[in-house]
Amino acid sequence: MRTSIATVCLSGTLEEKMHAAAAAGFDGIEVFEQDLVVSPSSPERIRDLAAELGLGLDLYQPFRDAEGVGPELVPAVLRRAAAKFRLMNRLGTDTVLVCSNVATATVDDDAVAARQLRALGDLAGEHGVRLAYEALAWGRYVDDFEHAQRIVELADHPSVGTCLDSFHILSRGWDPAPIERIPAEKIFFVQLADAPLLSMDVLSWSRHHRVFPGEGDFDMVGFMTRLVRSGYDGPVSLEIFNDAFRQADVRRTAVDGLRSLRWLEDQTLRALAGQPVRDRLELQALPAVAEPAGYDFVEIRTARLGETTRLLHQLGFALGGHHQSKEHVQVWVQGPVRVVVVDAVREAVPGASPTEIAALGFTVEDPEAAVDRATRLRARPVERTQGPGEQVLRGVHAPDGTEIFFCRASPDGVPPWLGEFGADDVLDPAALVTGVDHVNMAQPWQHYDEAVLFYTSVLALEAQPAQDVPGPSGLVRSQVMRSADGAVRMPLNVAPAAAEQGSFVGAAYPEHVALACSDVVAAARRARRRGLAPLPVPQNYYEDLVARFDLDEAFVASLQELDLLYDRDTGGEFLHFYTGTLGTVFFEVVERRGGYAGFGAPNAPVRLAAQYRRSHEPGARQRSPRGAASPQ
Amino acid sequence: MRTSIATVCLSGTLEEKMHAAAAAGFDGIEVFEQDLVVSPSSPERIRDLAAELGLGLDLYQPFRDAEGVGPELVPAVLRRAAAKFRLMNRLGTDTVLVCSNVATATVDDDAVAARQLRALGDLAGEHGVRLAYEALAWGRYVDDFEHAQRIVELADHPSVGTCLDSFHILSRGWDPAPIERIPAEKIFFVQLADAPLLSMDVLSWSRHHRVFPGEGDFDMVGFMTRLVRSGYDGPVSLEIFNDAFRQADVRRTAVDGLRSLRWLEDQTLRALAGQPVRDRLELQALPAVAEPAGYDFVEIRTARLGETTRLLHQLGFALGGHHQSKEHVQVWVQGPVRVVVVDAVREAVPGASPTEIAALGFTVEDPEAAVDRATRLRARPVERTQGPGEQVLRGVHAPDGTEIFFCRASPDGVPPWLGEFGADDVLDPAALVTGVDHVNMAQPWQHYDEAVLFYTSVLALEAQPAQDVPGPSGLVRSQVMRSADGAVRMPLNVAPAAAEQGSFVGAAYPEHVALACSDVVAAARRARRRGLAPLPVPQNYYEDLVARFDLDEAFVASLQELDLLYDRDTGGEFLHFYTGTLGTVFFEVVERRGGYAGFGAPNAPVRLAAQYRRSHEPGARQRSPRGAASPQ
Repeated sequence: MRTSIATVCLSGTLEEKMHAAAAAGFDGIEVFEQDLVVSPSSPERIRDLAAELGLGLDLYQPFRDAEGVGPELVPAVLRRAAAKFRLMNRLGTDTVLVCSNVATATVDDDAVAARQLRALGDLAGEHGVRLAYEALAWGRYVDDFEHAQRIVELADHPSVGTCLDSFHILSRGWDPAPIERIPAEKIFFVQLADAPLLSMDVLSWSRHHRVFPGEGDFDMVGFMTRLVRSGYDGPVSLEIFNDAFRQADVRRTAVDGLRSLRWLEDQTLRALAGQPVRDRLELQALPAVAEPAGYDFVEIRTARLGETTRLLHQLGFALGGHHQSKEHVQVWVQGPVRVVVVDAVREAVPGASPTEIAALGFTVEDPEAAVDRATRLRARPVERTQGPGEQVLRGVHAPDGTEIFFCRASPDGVPPWLGEFGADDVLDPAALVTGVDHVNMAQPWQHYDEAVLFYTSVLALEAQPAQDVPGPSGLVRSQVMRSADGAVRMPLNVAPAAAEQGSFVGAAYPEHVALACSDVVAAARRARRRGLAPLPVPQNYYEDLVARFDLDEAFVASLQELDLLYDRDTGGEFLHFYTGTLGTVFFEVVERRGGYAGFGAPNAPVRLAAQYRRSHEPGARQRSPRGAASPQ
Repeated sequence: MRTSIATVCLSGTLEEKMHAAAAAGFDGIEVFEQDLVVSPSSPERIRDLAAELGLGLDLYQPFRDAEGVGPELVPAVLRRAAAKFRLMNRLGTDTVLVCSNVATATVDDDAVAARQLRALGDLAGEHGVRLAYEALAWGRYVDDFEHAQRIVELADHPSVGTCLDSFHILSRGWDPAPIERIPAEKIFFVQLADAPLLSMDVLSWSRHHRVFPGEGDFDMVGFMTRLVRSGYDGPVSLEIFNDAFRQADVRRTAVDGLRSLRWLEDQTLRALAGQPVRDRLELQALPAVAEPAGYDFVEIRTARLGETTRLLHQLGFALGGHHQSKEHVQVWVQGPVRVVVVDAVREAVPGASPTEIAALGFTVEDPEAAVDRATRLRARPVERTQGPGEQVLRGVHAPDGTEIFFCRASPDGVPPWLGEFGADDVLDPAALVTGVDHVNMAQPWQHYDEAVLFYTSVLALEAQPAQDVPGPSGLVRSQVMRSADGAVRMPLNVAPAAAEQGSFVGAAYPEHVALACSDVVAAARRARRRGLAPLPVPQNYYEDLVARFDLDEAFVASLQELDLLYDRDTGGEFLHFYTGTLGTVFFEVVERRGGYAGFGAPNAPVRLAAQYRRSHEPGARQRSPRGAASPQ
């Protein structure tokens, strides 16, 4: 599939956008007119640069207000078009996007629109240019791709064809099925954009909230299968108007975009599997991977080794051993949960946070295929050394920098790498902690969509509906990514962008590991015996709990004694407690009774408020180098 | 008027919110339940703190899902209510907000709802509590204040009254006129929120985009006049759900809120002037001020005196003199424009930006009244010293820290303070520059609404519709504040929040002074002769100009020779050029031909791109201490 991206998706100068698109691996770009107008580089220079970078200039856009106008406006349209066609000749671009008239249309007559497009087509033909006519979702008279296609048919001109844009079609709820019946040679261009389902005017939605395929709620795969069936064989191009993309680092946005197309290509192939379709787009498959079976390990890097291992011990972990060739690396184990602890003081990584979640290991069927897939999805591999005879662990960097490792399952539940720690007798069937319930990762708001696509495409997790949690420093957006069977759950949190509440909200935001537990009361008691001061829960909370759930007062008193929080849904009950925060990490211990499906979201404000108070106490620890809060 | 604010408007802990509300001057607060639930302070402690701070606890909220339920749910509602009423007794709060049922209502029958509210009223009465029933805009069966009032009338219980919320009424387009006819003693509470007119679902609009009165598009004054006519005499309380307020500094948000109420009170009084209304709210008037007649001066503080004065000279300014008692202060003059230049190196203000717009002087009729008004609107006065016999200039700080001075007009157009610079022969009627066309001020996004209200209420400027300008580092929102006669124009710009494009977008963003000019070609030629390198305009821009406007090529060539930009509207033409940026300031010279009404917005992307390129050139100057870009 030929991949392309509109320069309007990207930040920076036109040259910066072109370099980023080429580096990410796109085949071509759409030149957005304004990017050229503000550039000091001549069209010839842009043409040469594209050739040097191996980028096609697949489209020039937009040409507005072309059709449906009164006869008095036609000469001005043609004059304007002639100037653009000459410019396109200098650029070496042969296709221009003509979008349906919004501003100057006064004639609601398909025959008139077709006649005017035909005249424009004559002029275009003289310049070797093709017009790709697109129905804007808010076009004055033409807002539907089938209507645009009827006008193209009426125009009946070799230089006049149609442009399909998934946003303009899916945002209006038009059925994409008729795409299959458009003659492939009349589809001159295809633009893709996904979007979250928002209830707002379509113009604002389009201008600010488009996202890359796989990052929104549209059925992009369904759209693509229609396109394949039409026999279209031209570029498939991203055209995303997104406020965050406009201000983000251009290179990572371009990589995010290419990832979305590679993922979509693969998904479309799977959807078409077994169907008799001639795929003229030449879709490429990615290596197939199954969803991960679980968390293999969590790695914490810390400059506060004593406090970290004390906390792990309080939570019931035992020291499994030290790595045979990396002495500054320990493993702590409890039942099937393994926490790798890296002593950052001895590792001497500059700029490392005092205490942070550095890596997550996932158990997968075929680690090689998973890495191969991730790499082809443009994830950056982790560079990792190992001694002779040691396990080769392979992984990639998530968008926030966390290392994601793909680990092979072992029949006995003991991963082979554990032997390198001299830890051979580690599975305690009586352990209170029975697994990693979930790991909660913080994401900077401007890369949130990128993170969702990364975990969707690389780890085969599925995004659940998002919700907002109010905290003392702003709303925290929370969205759970999970595997279909729920074995891997990873809520992504987005902290507010402003940071006026002091150190609590910053570039990072506390992340946490939630440990599943068979008896949270016993776990809490053990932790207390071992000196843990859990995150305190206010008396007011327990009084409210009684009022909300009509609970037995003795039961609530038993919760309060241990700073346990409580929630209930139709499936069951949820009891949990939090530790304080070290660096940017804290722990949660949870017990699910019955089929409780949530994550205790109603209690999150209690936690956020307590963490806020701790971070604002006199003497609260200062920031990590990553800018994150280090309360407690 | 008794002023109150809901704690949900403010960031931080409950105690921090209470301190901020008291410091801003509110009479009371609404306790938002969740703020209490997450607090370690007991209800009794909150009651005592309120008494210490002189704050009333005017409302407890919300109580949800009370009415319209099936009979099987009634006991649970009453049990839940009893717990809340006991809590309110401990807090010493006597009014609770009951909002119309969203989640559990199944009976669409006013008689049933009234009966259930009556039963709740009986229970409330036993606790000395009053229920203020409010129609949520998205209530299941009750979404209209008149409907809620009918149910209150049916309930016919002394403890059951109505709560009016301007958002829930105006967002749905309900006519507020019937408020006048509600018996005043049945209006138990009034909440105010303004909002920008957005086309989105009302729930999202309400939860994220409410703003303080005067910061949005609702007719808040019309709402208030209805309320006054009803005879209501209770608290008027702000209830604003706003993502930015939730994360902003709590003290300034509280001040912003109180300012909005003082402004609204004054506007309402004016709207009622001459009408026979018994004002039981006891509205207080502010000192009346007329809109400013113009810019009296612009003050630039700089650590790069040589470059700044060279730039002023290039633009045609002459040195008027040095201040008699503040030697580090100079004035530069051209026609009626005065630029005060403060040598920041000699002033030794720590943390000052190398070059910034430090102050703006506005010519007003009555400076004393203007300062009095501003101070009562909670603006912070500027501390300024003057020598014996020198003019007393009084001013206040704008939200972004800029000093705003109120200056008396003089009959001859020469301000009296100019004599202190030994500048007595300064009005050159032949000057090319004829005034300050506009001053463009950058605002951090999270205080944008605050800035709009500040200039509306303190300077009597009016907000014009906002627009977005695309730049290489993101969209820049631009909104013009202007006096009714256009003598004072001040576009406010909001830069993107993220800063991944390096130094260009930061806490600040370049601001500029646009000089009105009778002959921009002559001004540009003079500037070139004096060595100015204007901000370069690309060739591509001029080629596009020809295509867009069908301009004479010779005319366009004359523009290009001088790096002049061009725009046109139905009223006339606009020619202008930009200087490079010093610190966070640059200049623009503009000529309006005919009745051109705009600000050259179509050309702003050209400027943003050129400034971006300069700031990214190797060797571009580094940041100011304020974090602002200092390109060139």
